[in-house]
Amino acid sequence: MTVSATLAANEAIAARRAAGQEVLALGFGEAGIPVHPLLRQRLAQAAGQTAYGPVAGTDAAREAAAGYWTRRAIPTAKEQVLLGPGSKPLLFALLHAAGGDVVLPKPAWVSYGAQAEMLGRDPIRVPVPEGEGGVPDADAMDAAVRAARAAGRDPRIVVVTLPDNPTGRLASEQSVKALCEAARELDLIIAADEIYRDLVFEPGAFPSPSAWAPERTVTTTSLSKNYALGGWRIGAARFPDSPLGERLRESVRGTASELWSSTPMPMQHAAAYAWSDPQELVDRVALARRLHGSVANAVAEVFAGAGCEVMPPQGGFYVWPDFEPLRASLAADWGIATSADLAEVLLERFGVVVLPGSAFGDDPERLTIRVAVPGLYGENDSERLAALVSDEPASMPWIGDALEGLAQKLRALTAPE
Amino acid sequence: MTVSATLAANEAIAARRAAGQEVLALGFGEAGIPVHPLLRQRLAQAAGQTAYGPVAGTDAAREAAAGYWTRRAIPTAKEQVLLGPGSKPLLFALLHAAGGDVVLPKPAWVSYGAQAEMLGRDPIRVPVPEGEGGVPDADAMDAAVRAARAAGRDPRIVVVTLPDNPTGRLASEQSVKALCEAARELDLIIAADEIYRDLVFEPGAFPSPSAWAPERTVTTTSLSKNYALGGWRIGAARFPDSPLGERLRESVRGTASELWSSTPMPMQHAAAYAWSDPQELVDRVALARRLHGSVANAVAEVFAGAGCEVMPPQGGFYVWPDFEPLRASLAADWGIATSADLAEVLLERFGVVVLPGSAFGDDPERLTIRVAVPGLYGENDSERLAALVSDEPASMPWIGDALEGLAQKLRALTAPE
Repeated sequence: MTVSATLAANEAIAARRAAGQEVLALGFGEAGIPVHPLLRQRLAQAAGQTAYGPVAGTDAAREAAAGYWTRRAIPTAKEQVLLGPGSKPLLFALLHAAGGDVVLPKPAWVSYGAQAEMLGRDPIRVPVPEGEGGVPDADAMDAAVRAARAAGRDPRIVVVTLPDNPTGRLASEQSVKALCEAARELDLIIAADEIYRDLVFEPGAFPSPSAWAPERTVTTTSLSKNYALGGWRIGAARFPDSPLGERLRESVRGTASELWSSTPMPMQHAAAYAWSDPQELVDRVALARRLHGSVANAVAEVFAGAGCEVMPPQGGFYVWPDFEPLRASLAADWGIATSADLAEVLLERFGVVVLPGSAFGDDPERLTIRVAVPGLYGENDSERLAALVSDEPASMPWIGDALEGLAQKLRALTAPE
Repeated sequence: MTVSATLAANEAIAARRAAGQEVLALGFGEAGIPVHPLLRQRLAQAAGQTAYGPVAGTDAAREAAAGYWTRRAIPTAKEQVLLGPGSKPLLFALLHAAGGDVVLPKPAWVSYGAQAEMLGRDPIRVPVPEGEGGVPDADAMDAAVRAARAAGRDPRIVVVTLPDNPTGRLASEQSVKALCEAARELDLIIAADEIYRDLVFEPGAFPSPSAWAPERTVTTTSLSKNYALGGWRIGAARFPDSPLGERLRESVRGTASELWSSTPMPMQHAAAYAWSDPQELVDRVALARRLHGSVANAVAEVFAGAGCEVMPPQGGFYVWPDFEPLRASLAADWGIATSADLAEVLLERFGVVVLPGSAFGDDPERLTIRVAVPGLYGENDSERLAALVSDEPASMPWIGDALEGLAQKLRALTAPE
């Protein structure tokens, strides 16, 4: 195994900074906001909790997670919930429980494919509907799964991301409904990674597959993105209230017991508080949502201004520009033919860390990159907190300067002197 | 996957207690001592650390772990160290990195075999030298590996446990040396699980395989047992300073990045303190060692008094009685033919939770059980702390009563009226 592209980017950024090199760090999916003091306090309060505890998680944390989903129109009992040290290991255990080949949207977050490969399964990648992200196009999936089965393969699960990493797009209700129908027709389990769910910028109905395929949808969440707590490592999975759901849940619980025993108890205590949606944290997430939306849209405009195709981001903190309109000049000026070439030139010539679309399973020749915007929020917690509470985060001077710096670099890339 | 036998025992104990049933809880490997206040304080101090951090762990925690090993005669640089959320996921990633079949001692801790099976490998179990535990007999391993290779299998790694879970025995220097020579001859990686290392009862040289096979031994440790912090989930692995070591370390780091991203940062802060061996914690571990040794030896005497064969425990907190001398009466009085039957009768008739030897890969007909002794330390933290600081823990009244209660139950089992 090699190190995940996103975490490798995080470490490359740290190494460049340690070496005194300037870097514009747009490579890593970290929310970039300090922890709310009430959450810090909860963790500190629970520092004396040292028992392993139940594999599935404590009753209090599972009950709170069930409430979190129930308040979001997915009625849930605590028996349907398993906790884990992040949603990542839960997803791995779920792919193992599904026990067959894995269908992914194209592009998709880096680790789904890597986890499938660890289980000896080459992922089946299906393009997303035009202008969307996070779900495979239903008709294309139907064709791909039938072709795979005809070729002797055994697809059993499709993973979707709502809203999406890397594209920053939220799949339409129509596309999710069609996906759910196709999954039922094909008898596929749906893994709905909703880790960015509370960070959808515009209010409105959230198209969770659990609404249309409740019997076969496993949903995951985490504190890492909504509450900017990646370094605490806490996630949860919700299993359907169905025989399939029970079988998957028991398999994941078994894997959990052999791979990680249980979820750190002090973190579970803090998670029980966070998932109870106290007003202070609901307000905090609202501020985070505004910050991410403001800066992500500003970044999308910068790329659009440089001549890229870029859809407006709808949730999370990513932008997914496509340099296709600039292909001829990028090839002539820099010898760029692939997204990996593009990311390398951005890093080596301009000190801008982004990830190439190919890291997400996109065709290598497509000139897409993933831009994670929290690297623009500030140099220190004081700047980041000021940006968080600002009515117009993108207009904070240091963010404005960083956006202008990015625009200059893109001008130099696309129209070198 | 089904839930690991040890964690299932933990949950069965909790369920029986919740139902108001009396239970003597000797099934689960939890150290049963409250956290030292200085460690609790370190965790609370670090509650604001929310970044993902490096996959390998922070420099401070890796440096501290390197010092921990260096002070124990295994010179280590921080570059050789990876942290993980417990040593369990590190061991899984190591088995994956080794990439072939897995050789285990018989008996061996439950999760090694389950992890091998998750990777599609049926473990090759090799008996331990007579009267020992935790390492396969070298000659028997040589024969088993050659036979496996002749049959087309691909053994690449052997796992050893020093001191051992389940037997409570510390392999002799002679057996470890012979194992190291055989591993080199057979070109096997050695995974040395030394999670109970600081809990060896008698002072003296510790026979780590890294002394005799430094180029091929990966060593793991954790805070869970030495510091009674299972619920914090923090472990570390030390890779050899060799090309093989580098290859394995990079593979494990890659798996880590895709399966668990990083180790919770607040825990790493506390671990950096613990692995620096401050005098307060060294003293604490010395008290824990005395407590475990005192009660484990008393428990062994109780089983010996009931007619079992039982070797004196040498480290950790387990006793491994063999009921073979009582086979005829157990069969006649209770219909017991296997260790699973024996564990079931102990639970259903006497409320004693232990694990059958078969859970550890022992032959089902051998009448061995694993007894975890911390369930006897007290009903609450006040009793457990009093036992911890006592010169003669086994003579504390509540421990004496529990030992007498166990003796009575064994008399009723072995000579029913």
